[in-house]
Amino acid sequence: MSKTQIYEVEVMFGDCDPAGIVFFPNFSKWMDASSLNFFVKCGVQPWRELVKTRGIIGTPLLEIHTKFMKPATYGERLQVHTSVIEWGAKVFKHQHRVMRGDTLLCEGTEVRAFCERDPADASRIRAIPVPEDIKALCH
Amino acid sequence: MSKTQIYEVEVMFGDCDPAGIVFFPNFSKWMDASSLNFFVKCGVQPWRELVKTRGIIGTPLLEIHTKFMKPATYGERLQVHTSVIEWGAKVFKHQHRVMRGDTLLCEGTEVRAFCERDPADASRIRAIPVPEDIKALCH
Amino acid sequence: MSKTQIYEVEVMFGDCDPAGIVFFPNFSKWMDASSLNFFVKCGVQPWRELVKTRGIIGTPLLEIHTKFMKPATYGERLQVHTSVIEWGAKVFKHQHRVMRGDTLLCEGTEVRAFCERDPADASRIRAIPVPEDIKALCH
Amino acid sequence: MSKTQIYEVEVMFGDCDPAGIVFFPNFSKWMDASSLNFFVKCGVQPWRELVKTRGIIGTPLLEIHTKFMKPATYGERLQVHTSVIEWGAKVFKHQHRVMRGDTLLCEGTEVRAFCERDPADASRIRAIPVPEDIKALCH
Repeated sequence: MSKTQIYEVEVMFGDCDPAGIVFFPNFSKWMDASSLNFFVKCGVQPWRELVKTRGIIGTPLLEIHTKFMKPATYGERLQVHTSVIEWGAKVFKHQHRVMRGDTLLCEGTEVRAFCERDPADASRIRAIPVPEDIKALCH
Repeated sequence: MSKTQIYEVEVMFGDCDPAGIVFFPNFSKWMDASSLNFFVKCGVQPWRELVKTRGIIGTPLLEIHTKFMKPATYGERLQVHTSVIEWGAKVFKHQHRVMRGDTLLCEGTEVRAFCERDPADASRIRAIPVPEDIKALCH
Repeated sequence: MSKTQIYEVEVMFGDCDPAGIVFFPNFSKWMDASSLNFFVKCGVQPWRELVKTRGIIGTPLLEIHTKFMKPATYGERLQVHTSVIEWGAKVFKHQHRVMRGDTLLCEGTEVRAFCERDPADASRIRAIPVPEDIKALCH
Repeated sequence: MSKTQIYEVEVMFGDCDPAGIVFFPNFSKWMDASSLNFFVKCGVQPWRELVKTRGIIGTPLLEIHTKFMKPATYGERLQVHTSVIEWGAKVFKHQHRVMRGDTLLCEGTEVRAFCERDPADASRIRAIPVPEDIKALCH
């Protein structure tokens, strides 16, 4: 469906909660970082450049679905394996698999859309069709 | 299925990302806070007490599923409406609806389990049956 | 020197670290929220409005100095008492006192400057003289 | 005074605020991670091991002082250069210099103490004399 890119994370003390394990929203934060890393590694400009060249502000989230299998703690190195498993007309679906070496810790999907500012109201954003050239870079 | 409890949040500048809107993992953080608030409002002890009295360390996440409808920004007050929509033998499912007044911003479910330290290995945790007395308090 | 405004915080589980106490950078996050709240309560527009009406993007930090006296944990309600204790030509100094009722938990100062985009390079920001009308609102 | 250890950070989108730059408390979070990394690189066990072997829960913060010179944004790689610049009887002082290559972005000190649980009340912590063997490892 697409290339797979790997984003590496080292868990910090401050990422962990009173149970001593990663506070789960941090997995979402790392998946988000891995999504941006995926596009940059595939040759897409980071959002702050793309907004200037093409008006694309990024790929806001529409939906996330995550399963947590095993906990992680600080000092550990994790790898987020990210790909695109579905391309729709206006949305696409990421798969993220968070590994600690060979061990799968957590797995999730994200539905996102490329968005631009609404020309009629700059405080609003709206989805645009998935750009074909960006899609091509990811294959 | 259960009572509904409301947790109120005021969005901080630091909760928002370069697009000027709430960075989405913060919605998960607030749902987590609203889950704990749900049990405390229903009369359950906070986890740091429950671990002393009954060995229950909290309700770790097994799965989350969230849909994002509308963005929010700093200075806004949000209300997370939280209930339990399913009780299983060892797991239960929360519903969280994040509102800004009458407007639904984001909606999600969480599957959680009450957990204790594994007596054989204190560095591991394991799910226990949903305590009947806690379930009763939530109705 | 200025009015004092109070910002209230309820500590979340996810604000706490493996020692079970507030992870200290969260105190900085709350002081930042309390700084913005200070100006809004004094009658100043939030930054996203001020940038449109006057080009002021906010009050970035130049320096912070914080002493931590006592820890806090989740479920507790804290009050950040915020004032301005020095007005310079281009900078000002906040004092923040984080209280849990009558108990002082942590105390800090922040040096900040009102800033605008550099007209010569929109990716850079620069300090402007402290606006007299905003200063007047804070007294 | 001590060795200098370097902790590397890649700035994430979610580390940045509506101004598009790193939200400043994240610099404190990275300095904290760099402090722990400093001790581990010097040969000290991570806190979750040290608490089992010697009852030391970590090195809570007493005071921080940070100056912010230049902003950073997402996608950039930063290096936190960390050393100990003062050893007291019960406290020590870290220096952290956050660099982006040759450019100094922010500089700070932290005063910390090695702490253990209070034997009379496990919910409280107390400072212990700086362990001589740990000090020796850092030179």
